[in-house]
Amino acid sequence: MSACEPLRIGVSGLGRGFMLLLPTLAAHPGIHLVAAADPRAEARARFEADFGGTGYDDFEALCRNPKVEAVYIASPHGLHREQVECAARHGKHVLVEKPMALSLADCQAMIEAMEAAGCWLLVGHSHSFDTPYLRTAAMIRSGEYGRVRMIHALNYTDFLYRPRRTEELDTTRGGGVVYSQAAHQVDIVRLLGGGEVTRVVAQTGQWDPQRPTEGAYSALLTFANGCFATLTYSGYAHFDTDEFNGWSGELGQQRSPAEYGKARATLQSIGSSEEEARLKNRRAYGSGLGLADTSLAGIGHNHFGLVLASCDAADLRPGPTGIDVYGHTEHRLVPLAQPDIPRREVLDEWIAAVRDNVAPIHSGAWGLATMEVCFALLESARTGQVVDLHYQCPVRPEGA
Amino acid sequence: MSACEPLRIGVSGLGRGFMLLLPTLAAHPGIHLVAAADPRAEARARFEADFGGTGYDDFEALCRNPKVEAVYIASPHGLHREQVECAARHGKHVLVEKPMALSLADCQAMIEAMEAAGCWLLVGHSHSFDTPYLRTAAMIRSGEYGRVRMIHALNYTDFLYRPRRTEELDTTRGGGVVYSQAAHQVDIVRLLGGGEVTRVVAQTGQWDPQRPTEGAYSALLTFANGCFATLTYSGYAHFDTDEFNGWSGELGQQRSPAEYGKARATLQSIGSSEEEARLKNRRAYGSGLGLADTSLAGIGHNHFGLVLASCDAADLRPGPTGIDVYGHTEHRLVPLAQPDIPRREVLDEWIAAVRDNVAPIHSGAWGLATMEVCFALLESARTGQVVDLHYQCPVRPEGA
Repeated sequence: MSACEPLRIGVSGLGRGFMLLLPTLAAHPGIHLVAAADPRAEARARFEADFGGTGYDDFEALCRNPKVEAVYIASPHGLHREQVECAARHGKHVLVEKPMALSLADCQAMIEAMEAAGCWLLVGHSHSFDTPYLRTAAMIRSGEYGRVRMIHALNYTDFLYRPRRTEELDTTRGGGVVYSQAAHQVDIVRLLGGGEVTRVVAQTGQWDPQRPTEGAYSALLTFANGCFATLTYSGYAHFDTDEFNGWSGELGQQRSPAEYGKARATLQSIGSSEEEARLKNRRAYGSGLGLADTSLAGIGHNHFGLVLASCDAADLRPGPTGIDVYGHTEHRLVPLAQPDIPRREVLDEWIAAVRDNVAPIHSGAWGLATMEVCFALLESARTGQVVDLHYQCPVRPEGA
Repeated sequence: MSACEPLRIGVSGLGRGFMLLLPTLAAHPGIHLVAAADPRAEARARFEADFGGTGYDDFEALCRNPKVEAVYIASPHGLHREQVECAARHGKHVLVEKPMALSLADCQAMIEAMEAAGCWLLVGHSHSFDTPYLRTAAMIRSGEYGRVRMIHALNYTDFLYRPRRTEELDTTRGGGVVYSQAAHQVDIVRLLGGGEVTRVVAQTGQWDPQRPTEGAYSALLTFANGCFATLTYSGYAHFDTDEFNGWSGELGQQRSPAEYGKARATLQSIGSSEEEARLKNRRAYGSGLGLADTSLAGIGHNHFGLVLASCDAADLRPGPTGIDVYGHTEHRLVPLAQPDIPRREVLDEWIAAVRDNVAPIHSGAWGLATMEVCFALLESARTGQVVDLHYQCPVRPEGA
């Protein structure tokens, strides 16, 4: 099998996660979508029309398809473990969406199943795949700027007021900003801080009885190497940290200040949670939307709010156009070429693992470590105590 | 005694703190500087030349001067307690600089002495006197925006690389950014969060062996009303949060990006700590500098980095030109008139207390509560544990 041959992928779950990665999957020359599993017939039909592959209503049937080499699992969080175990039984490599799973036991089972099968397991997309953060992490690891000492991550969005399904507002089912958004922010901060968090203390906010899940948090993390980090997220926000990224949005799109308050205004016009779910479904693949409705035109690097990594000799500030390096004597921007295929990093890492046996940064062990931080964040907020961690892993050494 | 009659003030300590407040003291129509105590003859001579008052080398001698109604104590932190007790014995009202003192016992003794004497004790200047924060706190207390839920305070400066005397780099003598800078930031955050902090957890950074004190910290505070706050400060910083305040500086001055790296470059050119102390002394009152070298021209409202207060119905962002109110449907700036006399707020509050018996926000009890947070911050960083607080006080109710 040639290293140039595209990876033949089956997709599990044609929902929002798939929609976000769809244009990248379609544009990437190393990817060939050959199958998809989803309970919605309209989504399967759209997939077959868009890609000429095979639609399944049963995930295991997809795994039995010999054309499928690897599976992208973007199904509801609660299905991740059983689908990864199923993929392992059929010898398929896996990319599973964040959050990896809702318990450490599930994460561990997923890792063990894939190891036993001799297959690669990656967790993503998360924003720690974004080139600005990967490049910043490489700059830190180079040692050029001394040790990394303190990291500051801040993201204010209207996350909680975008159209949501009921389970997205239910923490026990993986809803709320800790599972959905800390999974990004923790992953980024771990990448920059070396990976191994020893202690977590946090507070979470549940301030809107109409949306009864965590909508905000602040956390203080300590790393094994002595670095510490604060992570703050508000999904209730009115202020928007995109202001600190030149009004480039999380997904690399150009934002318009004229859209101020749009999410809340839209939600305000909706009468019921059923109507909200319908609105959400209109953004789902197959329900009116397909490949033709997506575009990568004008899309830059993704980001996740304000991130500052303070090293001995410089503060590094990754952003969508480059990395600001504030050194002792000068401030310069290390520019980043705009992406040819936005979000391709996650697929590049997956392909490199499967085709060239390059150990990924975002392995199962890495994903479990990020979830351990998220679980600890929730636990600390509940108990008021500092939570010690036990399952952390370092950033993959260069060339490992 | 007429309410219009200027407050007759004796100053203790003609150092950096005095230099910062000097132009405000000189410009304020409600203030009359009548005496000063300082060990440096040149400073006393300059004071007498500038103001026609009396210089003393002994603080108690100043207190015996019947012209002195009130004392502004800007002497080294270690002298605060004994000087406040001395002022109390002589029936003088006191404004004592932050940090109030270096132990809770000292703070308590100062409060008790002043209460027994029936005199007003205020602690400041701190940046929580700045109009943008006072106004934001009043907006929060008005209830118009619902409850305050989360506060975020971030300040990156080159604090540690400005010229310092040895004791400023020695935590046991009140050096480092917790005593010097958290005293500002905690005061601001307490003002916005209602005052009563219940728990503190924090990390501090001591990263430069040449400057062996805390140069950075991150803290997570929980309030009795459920609000929580993250406070992050770096005095090692290369990035500068003045960027988030339109390049207006902490002291209301216009900053120039052309001065990038100036503090480190200056320090680099200095050979010894003695030379550094001499450089510092050149910025001191009397050693070349006097009233004529100060100016309030072009000085706007002070600030202390990025501050975001998230309420149910709006995020409030105080800045030197006004308060950004990010509401549900619109973002607007509540503009602030530029100050006629910058930093006058601390003197206004002092005068209102002494002349009109208006209980100050920044009372001794308030100052002690802020120091309790600072002590807890250091303790938490040392032990890794959450620290419970016991001496907190609310923001003075309106009209109290």
